[in-house]
Amino acid sequence: MKSHTEYLTFTVPARMGFVNITQQVADAVTKSGVREGLVLCNAMHITASVFINDNESGLHADYQKWLEQLAPFDPSPQRYAHNRTGEDNADAHLKRQVMGREVVIAITNGKLDFGPWEQVFYGEFDGRRPKRVLVKVIGE
Amino acid sequence: MKSHTEYLTFTVPARMGFVNITQQVADAVTKSGVREGLVLCNAMHITASVFINDNESGLHADYQKWLEQLAPFDPSPQRYAHNRTGEDNADAHLKRQVMGREVVIAITNGKLDFGPWEQVFYGEFDGRRPKRVLVKVIGE
Amino acid sequence: MKSHTEYLTFTVPARMGFVNITQQVADAVTKSGVREGLVLCNAMHITASVFINDNESGLHADYQKWLEQLAPFDPSPQRYAHNRTGEDNADAHLKRQVMGREVVIAITNGKLDFGPWEQVFYGEFDGRRPKRVLVKVIGE
Repeated sequence: MKSHTEYLTFTVPARMGFVNITQQVADAVTKSGVREGLVLCNAMHITASVFINDNESGLHADYQKWLEQLAPFDPSPQRYAHNRTGEDNADAHLKRQVMGREVVIAITNGKLDFGPWEQVFYGEFDGRRPKRVLVKVIGE
Repeated sequence: MKSHTEYLTFTVPARMGFVNITQQVADAVTKSGVREGLVLCNAMHITASVFINDNESGLHADYQKWLEQLAPFDPSPQRYAHNRTGEDNADAHLKRQVMGREVVIAITNGKLDFGPWEQVFYGEFDGRRPKRVLVKVIGE
Repeated sequence: MKSHTEYLTFTVPARMGFVNITQQVADAVTKSGVREGLVLCNAMHITASVFINDNESGLHADYQKWLEQLAPFDPSPQRYAHNRTGEDNADAHLKRQVMGREVVIAITNGKLDFGPWEQVFYGEFDGRRPKRVLVKVIGE
């Protein structure tokens, strides 16, 4: 069994934003030499997400608006008990649960085995500082 | 390490619907010859889901009603920027994030290692056309 | 390829509650002898979750309040068709979809490859009885 590990770092300038990381994940698979296997890609921070969806800016605006409705940003400790700790990012912890922490992608014939529109995104919900993503490839 | 790859195709006649695919996933595991390992099962389309829950029609109706409340179907570009592209399925991209893209299931002694009520479902949020699901088995 | 399987059992005294299971998952990885690989950790019941987030009691209270808003407990069959079956836990099936069934964690140098705040939790949405969690380690 082969394995390969990479850590990617992203600094999103706004509180919320999405970054297309498909090429970095594909490159990690190529470097691993794995032909058949799995790649795990996950946010290493708990106010961020890795998810798979469409590379379409209107949809990304829709996600942001929708997540803001489901879990509004509110630094006050009245709405969110977590913000009593001095943090202001409780909403980001909730948003991340909707979008998910991680994706697992099949590797077939040395490539990400994707449908026609699948793209991997880093989803940031409490940005403006460097945060890491793990890419772990296993297989043969 | 052994691996085995299958592509399943589903055409759900309605916009939204759930299909029990547990037997197809179990069959793929049997064909793989893997006794200990993992199976990844994911939607290859970004307006669909693979999830694990109960095989109970009332619950499935509850999921549909609930998802429609969380992310209502609305083809207009007023509610969803994605629909400015000529698409009418922004809601389906949102619903899929709630239900998830994929499941990873343990294989123990050559079988899906499931609790008593776990069943695998294909979740469709923009149906009426053929869409694919990937089953990837790895292990030994 | 090595593999290792464990079943953990939790009885949460309330309907909803979260249990930190990071140490049990780390112990399973140590017992497996795997240095590079993946560990899958999933609820085996469909009204429960395994998720990764912060070990902060205020945040856990926020999750409970938020999930109760998104999918309120209501034993009546008027709100939830599932409860026509004699069950009263339809809300728990919905809450679990928001929080997710499973996590997949990278193992690097024999350890859970975690960011600084990542902790694994068992999330219970219909407690007061013993329920199981599966830990499956594969790798080399």
